[in-house]
Amino acid sequence: MNSIERLSKLIQESVASWELPNSPENLYDPLRYFLTIGGKRMRPVLTLMGAELFGGKAESAIHAALGVELFHNFTLIHDDIMDEAPLRRSKTTVHTQWNQNIAILSGDVLMVKAYQEICKQEAQHLPELMRVFNKTAIEVCEGQQMDMDFEDRNNVTIEEYVEMIRLKTSVLLGGALEMGAIVSGASLSDRELLYTFGQELGLAFQIKDDYLDLYGDPEKFGKQIGGDVIANKKTLLYLLALENSTEEQLESFRILEKEQNLEAKVKSVRTLFDELNIPAKAQEYMDAHFSKGMDALMQISVSKEQKTDLIDLSNYLMAREN
Amino acid sequence: MNSIERLSKLIQESVASWELPNSPENLYDPLRYFLTIGGKRMRPVLTLMGAELFGGKAESAIHAALGVELFHNFTLIHDDIMDEAPLRRSKTTVHTQWNQNIAILSGDVLMVKAYQEICKQEAQHLPELMRVFNKTAIEVCEGQQMDMDFEDRNNVTIEEYVEMIRLKTSVLLGGALEMGAIVSGASLSDRELLYTFGQELGLAFQIKDDYLDLYGDPEKFGKQIGGDVIANKKTLLYLLALENSTEEQLESFRILEKEQNLEAKVKSVRTLFDELNIPAKAQEYMDAHFSKGMDALMQISVSKEQKTDLIDLSNYLMAREN
Repeated sequence: MNSIERLSKLIQESVASWELPNSPENLYDPLRYFLTIGGKRMRPVLTLMGAELFGGKAESAIHAALGVELFHNFTLIHDDIMDEAPLRRSKTTVHTQWNQNIAILSGDVLMVKAYQEICKQEAQHLPELMRVFNKTAIEVCEGQQMDMDFEDRNNVTIEEYVEMIRLKTSVLLGGALEMGAIVSGASLSDRELLYTFGQELGLAFQIKDDYLDLYGDPEKFGKQIGGDVIANKKTLLYLLALENSTEEQLESFRILEKEQNLEAKVKSVRTLFDELNIPAKAQEYMDAHFSKGMDALMQISVSKEQKTDLIDLSNYLMAREN
Repeated sequence: MNSIERLSKLIQESVASWELPNSPENLYDPLRYFLTIGGKRMRPVLTLMGAELFGGKAESAIHAALGVELFHNFTLIHDDIMDEAPLRRSKTTVHTQWNQNIAILSGDVLMVKAYQEICKQEAQHLPELMRVFNKTAIEVCEGQQMDMDFEDRNNVTIEEYVEMIRLKTSVLLGGALEMGAIVSGASLSDRELLYTFGQELGLAFQIKDDYLDLYGDPEKFGKQIGGDVIANKKTLLYLLALENSTEEQLESFRILEKEQNLEAKVKSVRTLFDELNIPAKAQEYMDAHFSKGMDALMQISVSKEQKTDLIDLSNYLMAREN
């Protein structure tokens, strides 16, 4: 069993044995439900790896890790309301299964529960854990707001987009890692390097997401290919395409936005993207962030052997096809 | 200037000088707006009084106090969505002024900001501050869920109702006071007594709210008299009335629930309540909780003089007419 499997198992056990009151059932049943529908549990694994990187035991950071996972699930429950998403990981979302008010409130209590978990860590680490977690949580909210704002804007720049995904998804990877490092007493400079590694890995990860949405193998991807195109989402691929388009190609994109035949729409957008060499350009962005992250990891003052797990996880995340 | 005014002023200054980023404006403008529409700021004043009770300076607990106020405002923003309330303190609610998604997300970030404020207190107090605050925040969510659940139930008991208002509103008064006491290094037994005082005062306060809604002086109350009756809300008054009604009176209540002439409805319910001696019965409940609170306060191991401010505040809250 490799470290990813070992640590994932630890997290799964921790989530599975996490106890919630029975009552009020409309508050806690949705949480029990949502936490069983799974996910990669990538963020809490990062917290445990952050602890192990500096010689601590994974178990020593288990509360912080669980707190990070609970927080992530809170954001998903509320995001699903905002996006009016009927499904999450092929299962009914909380606001669909119960109702919107219940989804708001059970999300709220889950956020508090995340804090409560983190506060089970040793008192000496609380100030720094709280500082990093609060900052990260605020940034995640800012990123979500930017994402919503972008829906109504037609002049989003690539720079703004990267800043949005940095806040919405990447800082939590950095924060998760740093929290593990705090528990193991890492130095501030090592913590900052580890945070940067997580953030850059997160950016590469999100760009990979954008890429797979259109270029993934339908058999492996597990979701409908071209979902972002159908929803006219301003992904990195789309913004890169706009930036590199001729007037004629821009006009084609404008027309395709309103195309009702969705299969034809996805196919045509993909043809245009291919003409514009978008897959390679997106890959460049992904590689740039991945390299920047790896550079930061390499500078951390522990032996290369101790970094193996994080390198393996990074490669695993970048090689994934779903 | 008495202590209530002095401490309220401190809180007002703290709220007014509280800095928020400008961007994303759809995240932070709603908070700036909501925090200016005011309120009694009773909870943070309690935190400061909790600190002063044990010889600390009010300023020493200002971050905890501000955190409590921010948390309270977060709950109001989300409650207003759930209740579909167009107005709060005669001003447009956040979800009405902006939209629901913005209200969800700005509420979320406000909760994190509440934690961030509290975490500015000295590190040595963080574990206990977090323990009390997390527990309180979870209970407030549980109380709100119970309140929503009660809307669909016709068999709510007085005991359940009191438990609901205890969680939804009273524990935060207890928690606010205890957080101040923690900052001043009070003993655990004194903290527990102070918490009980706050909780019982909160129960008396909420029952007073129920009472004023129907029996307040229209000129002083500032809101429409009988709002709870019109909304068929299961308040303590209503539950007491049901418990004491004859079959015939029960039938009258059932008919009045559907009465379309709202002025007549309020008047008839009030007549029935008067026949059943409900004002006096509600007063008994209020007095019982108030006394229980005062008993706890009296047992706290500081001089009676040091308790003057809390006694004054309690009397002020009980004498209020709006």
